[in-house]
Amino acid sequence: MSEESRAEVLARLPLRDDLRGRTPYGAPQLEVPVRLNTNENSHDVPGEVVQAILDAVRQQARHLNRYPDREFTGLREDLANYLGHDLEAEQVWAANGSNEVLQQLLQAFAGAGRTVLGFTPSYSMHPIISTGTGATWVDGRRGLDGQAADDPHQFDLHIDETVEQIRVHRPHVTFLCSPNNPTGTALDLALVEAAYAATDGILIVDEAYHEFARSGTPSALSLLPGRERLIVSRTMSKAFALAGVRLGYMAAHPAVTDAIRLVRLPYHLSSLTQAAAQAALWHSDVLLDTVETIKSERDRIVASVTELGLKPAPSDANFVLIGGFDDEKAVWRSLLSRGVLIRDVGLAGFLRVTAGTPAENTKFLDALADSLLDAPVAV
Amino acid sequence: MSEESRAEVLARLPLRDDLRGRTPYGAPQLEVPVRLNTNENSHDVPGEVVQAILDAVRQQARHLNRYPDREFTGLREDLANYLGHDLEAEQVWAANGSNEVLQQLLQAFAGAGRTVLGFTPSYSMHPIISTGTGATWVDGRRGLDGQAADDPHQFDLHIDETVEQIRVHRPHVTFLCSPNNPTGTALDLALVEAAYAATDGILIVDEAYHEFARSGTPSALSLLPGRERLIVSRTMSKAFALAGVRLGYMAAHPAVTDAIRLVRLPYHLSSLTQAAAQAALWHSDVLLDTVETIKSERDRIVASVTELGLKPAPSDANFVLIGGFDDEKAVWRSLLSRGVLIRDVGLAGFLRVTAGTPAENTKFLDALADSLLDAPVAV
Repeated sequence: MSEESRAEVLARLPLRDDLRGRTPYGAPQLEVPVRLNTNENSHDVPGEVVQAILDAVRQQARHLNRYPDREFTGLREDLANYLGHDLEAEQVWAANGSNEVLQQLLQAFAGAGRTVLGFTPSYSMHPIISTGTGATWVDGRRGLDGQAADDPHQFDLHIDETVEQIRVHRPHVTFLCSPNNPTGTALDLALVEAAYAATDGILIVDEAYHEFARSGTPSALSLLPGRERLIVSRTMSKAFALAGVRLGYMAAHPAVTDAIRLVRLPYHLSSLTQAAAQAALWHSDVLLDTVETIKSERDRIVASVTELGLKPAPSDANFVLIGGFDDEKAVWRSLLSRGVLIRDVGLAGFLRVTAGTPAENTKFLDALADSLLDAPVAV
Repeated sequence: MSEESRAEVLARLPLRDDLRGRTPYGAPQLEVPVRLNTNENSHDVPGEVVQAILDAVRQQARHLNRYPDREFTGLREDLANYLGHDLEAEQVWAANGSNEVLQQLLQAFAGAGRTVLGFTPSYSMHPIISTGTGATWVDGRRGLDGQAADDPHQFDLHIDETVEQIRVHRPHVTFLCSPNNPTGTALDLALVEAAYAATDGILIVDEAYHEFARSGTPSALSLLPGRERLIVSRTMSKAFALAGVRLGYMAAHPAVTDAIRLVRLPYHLSSLTQAAAQAALWHSDVLLDTVETIKSERDRIVASVTELGLKPAPSDANFVLIGGFDDEKAVWRSLLSRGVLIRDVGLAGFLRVTAGTPAENTKFLDALADSLLDAPVAV
């Protein structure tokens, strides 16, 4: 079957009008020696955790003929314990990646005829998932008037401007992202509090990268008491080094989980997923051992690229958004030709790199220095 | 936190209006000796397959820090091989249960402002998933005018009546279910052909129970060539005895998979799910060994309940819809008190029972005979 006929058939299929002409989400999945493009944790799963996962799967395997626990009770208890903040299992929900958690929330609280606000640039799946549920997405803005195009603080959120945009658009759901992806910076809780007070809709704080935040950065989990419309989402794909397990989760008032139950597909979390995630949580100290290494490597990348004349944004995540490129696409290609895959996030003058293992980061920094000889920095 | 305050908070949350007052989907998950209520395969996973799944997971575990193959290429090849009919991997798609496959299809081809038609009673998730995407659900009808309320053929679909309803409602997506759940009967392919010819929308044939069909029952897969709007969905939860793995799939024109890519959440299938499903497919002959036993047990249930004066619908599935109860809720409770959980599917006078292991079925039939003494059959 030729590609041509396939595209022709797609054009004939009764696809929704709002999907026509779109391209699927997807970072390139290329076989490259150094992959620093999807903010994975580059460290292999430790042997102790591998064994724990295998043991947990062995316990399930014989009875995989049965549907999983639809309420994943044990996993919710373990997630609540991990999160702390006096959270109880009934406040926790999980799904196949935080994308699915967000989709369930948007099906319950957004969807057709409703509006979702986020502050761009942020996680690119937020608008895709929102419009996928039929909601209208509003691109909020970051920074302040008059900031230079290469100012690394142009992506900061400010309280007054954030509150103003929420008041203007009156969204049913508002996304904050802390630390923000792709820019890397965490939010002050005063901004989260002000955003919550400004809306009568749902406020989701996406904390996928929270574990990497600079010390002293508080979590929005501490704001949950008394705020029934506040939701904090997390993932095991980043700090926990378990992107392959696909386990995202959230904490909120228990009534929010009741709302999700109205739209979730029953038995959405497999017995294998529940078993592997629980095994990993029982060894969270071992798994999170890499976090300090990654944070210091991230800080090394920030310092090194600054020395190269580039302008990194302040990062609380396991990645760095680097500004100051004259032709970021040329640098991206040059790095790829040197075996290093990083991310073009579609921001002119910027590229994003994941902080990998020390060896990977050294390869990246060496390749970057070489690439800049091909495509010099704009001064 | 009291249940009362939780319900009060849910009432205050900015939930979508169309979800207010609904109750979540969910068969009771009760700890009962004989569970015959969710059409699982009651046979444990064979040791050989358990070992294959463990080996496959062991190969993945060390690298679970990486995202899974977003295109699950190996799994799609194995599914295509299993399905036969000269299908190629590019025609196959999979997700976490056929529910998620159906949700992705409805996000692409239905959603807000569009209409979905199904013929009730059928799989109860079809309307839930459809309205969850914002689409309008139309309850089509089965049978012919003038059929008695306990006629087991009242749930048959007929070509003229089916085509007529499709012409009237002009749905964007039409569901057929063969064998139908909860009634158990497979469709004649002539009806599928006629339904396809009558619509310019998508036609989904849900074949979750196909492997249990009486011999000589053809699959709608044979109708795929030349029909680009036809989709056939399957699952590994039933014949494959892998409900705990959550693996549903479908076959169609490759352009249909391109449509799904516009709405699917990236990396939706975990590395564990891909590995376990592939391992199972490599041993499909062993796994499917139980299918013949289950079919003969199903036929034993049909014969036995007929002897008890009940009226089973003809079944091509691993369950039997039994009619002729005067008070089906009393019988359901009486069975439960005897340690046997079956399904009240909400049809007056009917109950549905899964064909389990021979021992389970004997317990069910004995308990049923006893229960009928408490709640005699209407004559």
